Parts: sequence; C-alpha cells; structure tokens
Amino acid sequence: MSSLYLDWAASAPPDPEIQEQILQVSRTLVANPSAVHGAGREAEKLLDDCRQRMAKVLGCRAKEVVFTSGGTESNNMVLFSLLHKKRDRRIVISGIEHPSLYQPAQTLKRLGFEVALVPADASGRIDPNRILSSLDERTALVAVMLVNNETGSIQPLAEISEALRDFQNRSGKKILLHTDAVQGFGKIPFQPDLLGVDSAALSAHKIGGPRGVGALYVRTGRIQEFLYSGGGQESGLRPGTENLPGIYGFVLASEKTCPRVSENHRRAEAAMGSFIEELRSLPEVILTNGERLEKAGAPFSPYILNFSIPPLPGELLVRVCEEEGFLVSTGSACSSKKKDRFRVLENMGISQEIAFSALRLSIGPRVAGLQLRGLAAALKRRIPELLKISTG
Amino acid sequence: MSSLYLDWAASAPPDPEIQEQILQVSRTLVANPSAVHGAGREAEKLLDDCRQRMAKVLGCRAKEVVFTSGGTESNNMVLFSLLHKKRDRRIVISGIEHPSLYQPAQTLKRLGFEVALVPADASGRIDPNRILSSLDERTALVAVMLVNNETGSIQPLAEISEALRDFQNRSGKKILLHTDAVQGFGKIPFQPDLLGVDSAALSAHKIGGPRGVGALYVRTGRIQEFLYSGGGQESGLRPGTENLPGIYGFVLASEKTCPRVSENHRRAEAAMGSFIEELRSLPEVILTNGERLEKAGAPFSPYILNFSIPPLPGELLVRVCEEEGFLVSTGSACSSKKKDRFRVLENMGISQEIAFSALRLSIGPRVAGLQLRGLAAALKRRIPELLKISTG
Repeated sequence: MSSLYLDWAASAPPDPEIQEQILQVSRTLVANPSAVHGAGREAEKLLDDCRQRMAKVLGCRAKEVVFTSGGTESNNMVLFSLLHKKRDRRIVISGIEHPSLYQPAQTLKRLGFEVALVPADASGRIDPNRILSSLDERTALVAVMLVNNETGSIQPLAEISEALRDFQNRSGKKILLHTDAVQGFGKIPFQPDLLGVDSAALSAHKIGGPRGVGALYVRTGRIQEFLYSGGGQESGLRPGTENLPGIYGFVLASEKTCPRVSENHRRAEAAMGSFIEELRSLPEVILTNGERLEKAGAPFSPYILNFSIPPLPGELLVRVCEEEGFLVSTGSACSSKKKDRFRVLENMGISQEIAFSALRLSIGPRVAGLQLRGLAAALKRRIPELLKISTG
Repeated sequence: MSSLYLDWAASAPPDPEIQEQILQVSRTLVANPSAVHGAGREAEKLLDDCRQRMAKVLGCRAKEVVFTSGGTESNNMVLFSLLHKKRDRRIVISGIEHPSLYQPAQTLKRLGFEVALVPADASGRIDPNRILSSLDERTALVAVMLVNNETGSIQPLAEISEALRDFQNRSGKKILLHTDAVQGFGKIPFQPDLLGVDSAALSAHKIGGPRGVGALYVRTGRIQEFLYSGGGQESGLRPGTENLPGIYGFVLASEKTCPRVSENHRRAEAAMGSFIEELRSLPEVILTNGERLEKAGAPFSPYILNFSIPPLPGELLVRVCEEEGFLVSTGSACSSKKKDRFRVLENMGISQEIAFSALRLSIGPRVAGLQLRGLAAALKRRIPELLKISTG
C-alpha cells in the first residue's frame, strides 16, 4: 500500500516536469556564470533572466533578489549581517520562530546582543502592539515569520510593519523588519513590498522546487553587507558559484505555484476544512490552536494543522498514522528530534500535556479532502484502543 | 564549431550518468531526512550511507564529514567559527588564497582579528618556515590551500602541519590547520588525516558533481560550533534541510574520480606537458610560474596552467582563444571581474605587466594533448598580428 504524504511543510514532493527542466539546464549550460568566455556569459544570461523572473513573481526589483542555498541560510544571513554593526546591538523576534531564526538569535545573544522575545497568543498570533512596545532606540531589527511552520498561524506582518513605521515617525529611528516567509511563499499572496518588510527568506523545496536552493529578498539599500564573502557573486551579497540549475528550478516552481495561490488556497481550505469538521466529531481530539475557526482576525494557512490526542505521545500517533498509510509528523522536521521540540507550542501557552501529544499534518495543493477523510476514519477506529492501552 | 572547454577549474562539465542518478533519488526519496516517519527515515538512511561512503573516500570517520552548499560556504564556516572565541583572535593565511577564504579573513580583520598574510615565492609556493615564523601564542588558525586555483601550485601541507606540531611541542599551543582543498580533491591524492590538517573544504562541481554542494572535513573535536545554526542537521554543524539528491551526486562523483586520481594525473600530465613544450617554442609566451618544470620541490597540478603574452591584455587573449574555439579564462572565475583580480599573481611577485596578460587554462581528465595542440598552433598563428596591433 502506498502511503499518503502529509508532511509537505517539511518538504514538498518535487515537481517531475521541473526536474526534467533542471536536468536540461545542467546538461547544456555547464560553464560558471562568472566566467568571461561565451559559455560563461550564456550561463550568466540565464541567471539574470532567472533573477528578473523571480522579481516579477515577488513584485520587486531584480537586484533585490539574492539566491541562496535555502531558507535557513537566508535567515542566518540576515541575523549575522548585524555583526557588522558597532551600535544598536539589540533585536526583537517572535517566540514562535523557526529554529533557523531562533537559534542564530541565541548565538547573537552569546556574542553580546540583546534579544527580546515577543510571545504569541493562544491562537499562535503575534500582537503588533506587543512588538511596538518591545522596541527601543537600540533595536536594529525585528523578525516575525509569515506563516508558522507548526500551527499554520499567519502573522500580521502589514500591521507590524506599520507599527515600525509609527515608531520611526516618532523616534526617527528605522528598524529593519525581516520575515521568514518559507511557509507562506506560494501558499498565501506574498509581495514583500506590499507587506512593508525589508527582507524575506524563501525556500524552493517547500513548493516543489529542488533541495538546496532558496532566496533572500532584500529591499534596496537595507542591508549592504552580509557576513560570508568570496567571489563577489550575487552582487557581492552571497558568495559561491551560482547553482544555476537549482536556481532555474526554483524560478520554475515559483512561476508555477504563485499565480495559482488563490485557486490552490481554496482547494486546500476545502480539504482541510472538511478534515477539521471530521476531527471535531472526535471528542478525544484537541485542535492545538482551538480558536482557529472561531476567532476573527486569527487567520491560518489551510496547508498546516496541528492537533493532539492527549495523553497519547506524538511519536506514537505518527507511528499509528503511518500504519494506517498516512505520513504526518510531530512538528517541525527541524526540531522533531531535539530538546526544543515544544518551544513554539509552549510559547503560545499550550500545556505540556497537549504539546507532548501534538501532531502536525501539512498538505499541498494536490491533496484532496476525500483522502484526508480516510485519516479521520482511521483515527476514530484506533483512538479507543490506544487510549485504553495508554491509560490502562 | 563546438568549442573545447578549458575552464574546468571554474566548473567541470557535470557527469551525465551521475545526473541521471541524482534525478532518480529526487524522484524516489522525497521526504525530509529529519522527518520521523518511514519516508523520512529512508531518506536519512541514504544520507548516512552517503556520509560513510564519503568518509571512505577521504580515509576519515563518517562524523568528520559535514555536507555544505559548496567550497565557499565550507571556507566561510571555518573562519567565522572563530567568532565564538574570546581570546586568540589571530589567524595566519597564505597570500594566494581563493577569495572565499581571503575575503572572510578581511571581514574577520574588520571585526577585530589580526590577520597575518604569508606571501608565496615566485613559483607560487608557500614556505613552511615562513608559516612557522609567523606563528605566535595568540594564533588560532592557519589556512593554506592545497592547490592554487590560478597557477596550479601544490602547497606543502604535510610540512606545514609538521611545523605546527613543532610549534605545539615547543609552546604547548595547538593551532588549527585548515586547507581549501577544492582544486586538489579528485586531482591529487588527498587524505586529510595523512596531511595532518584539521579541516578541509571540498566542492562537488569541480569534479563533475552537481552545483551547490560541497563538504567540510572536520577532524573530531577540532571545531565544536560553527556560526550559522538552525534545525540541528549534520550533527548540529550545518543547518538547513539536507540536499540529499545533491549530496548523493557529490558522493558518486567522488567515488568515480578519486580512485582514478593517479591514472587521470598521468594523462593530464602528458597532455599539459606536451602543451607546455609547444608554448616554450613561442618566445612571446611567458609561463607565469616559470620555474614550474625546472625547480625541484615546486610541484604543480597538471590540470592548471597560467601563462601570459605581454603586453596583450588577458581579456583580449580570452577572446582570441574563443574565436579559435578554445574556452579559457583570465584567472579565477571568482575574481575575473573584480578589483582583486591580480592579487594572487602579485603576491607571488609577478610583475603587473605579466599579471595583466595572464591566461588560465584548466583541463579535466578527458582533455587530450592532441586537442591542446590546436590551441598552441592557433596562438602561434595569431600572436604576431596581435602584437603588431597592440604595439603599433
């Protein structure tokens, strides 16, 4: 029996057509885009073309797109660019950031920075007013992710950027706003300029593109220098021979996914909505962010759902789902095996018992409600026996 | 007319068989290797297997292999890991390092480190005694590349590591030895443990593997923590969802190339040797490292040759070679368009006039002497006319 893959937030199955096209570019454009001969210039031309096409997708300027090895590198780049600053060594981040943002922030702390953590509310949302009241004259940067990778909560970036503008109007002090947009890009409408963010991290493999490729949007003039350097590629902003086939694949995946954001969103919402309805009929199931549907102003990505069946451990539930033919996860793949596994849920005020039992289900545009119904039925069938063993 | 690609040091044409195998892995192992479900564990298993196979190629332990996005990232990782140190903020590097090592060293300088530069001699070789005499009690790290990317000079790493051991015996102070092995790996025998280096940067695309993949060898216990962090991948040493298809391709390319190092070396030596003989019959041609063949103890990689025809500018020569069907470069692709283009040659004491005219020709195991003969003949035919225009 082949399993239904419900771990798209960890990595989306790569698009087969795009993989073919990546292979073609690998075969035909073999020169280094920085080489001065004709074959190098030909590769450079495609690279320029990729940058322009990506800029079009993002509604920004070509030179605001920096290709990287992934979302993790993009987040690290932004945080460690602050090491160039002699003053204003303070940052504000949300308490529910992905490890690739949270961990570098902890490193900055050890290197002498002050790091203020703004907690989320019970629905997993960061209140713009709490961001505003955490700012001071020494704050260099605020980082709030676009869509949380464990709960799907969408953050009010536009309001946060407005709060930062208010602060600037009052104090004259410009604070950079960075967003980890990895779980939002290709899933909800995303144009960095409209949200008012100064930088944004993107990843290819979350939207059907290749592994090991990502991008950093940087608004013109906002970050002049990153930490890593080398051969001056990417206008001196990101060094290393450009992974042209990978970059090309990322652009293709973006062009394929982003224009269909609304259409895909409707389908995902229908699939996830009916699954949530089925779960509601199971009294043992707790929707981790229970206010999900009720509370206005707390929007969620329909691609990610977090729920638990306490006191059953998340790992047990993952195994049971797998036996039933469904591949889900306990949370972020990036923290599934580590101590800070419950950091995000606990930051939202979720109890340890519920966090310990949490499951994350994440879908893509090609997963249908009918397929999810099988999982709800399987849970209904298996829960009584599991609870009996566990509490017996 | 299809051109002969002679810019392998910038990027080697990817191996078609390996590309097919990369595609297979992309198609079949779609899960995140950090995911806890079966598909994730299957991906993790191949990743473990890749690490063990790479360790076998390098003659080291599996946990000493860290996969990265390329040689540039590997070099940057090592240098910026030093930011964790409160004391001993001094490094010694050779004057002929690749930009991906030289530039981060300049950044460390701006961040308060002392950076000592040891120049090369006229043949492009770093004297181990000069390294030894540059050491002091505050020195944390020495970095000397294995094979220079512009001239092909092979550096005496074993002697340098012995000098560091001498220093340690006398002073009790352990100094780390890092080597950028990008142009040596797969070209000359390379086992980090035999050379006595503590870390080494490797790249996949220089040996027919995919772009955007590399590795860092780190001897057990030598570097505990790097700067970038995130999801704890690669035993916490390099964050970001693992690029499994790319890593797999890198391992295949290494396994294909490294066992043939001696055989390929003999062929390259024959091809390059006969080309050098042809160049010697052209009085206008200056072999940039002229002592190449005469001087004992100054070994060179047979894959890279640097020569000039002053006063003809390197760019002009690149264009003329291209007209004749040969793709060569002026130097490193990573510095071909930048101000520090002549840094390496000038560090060797090469005159500006000769550096300005420098051409780099770099071959792979599949380039034959007969093919290079055509370039020598073309140069012989075109030089008189070019010199006439240029000096006329």
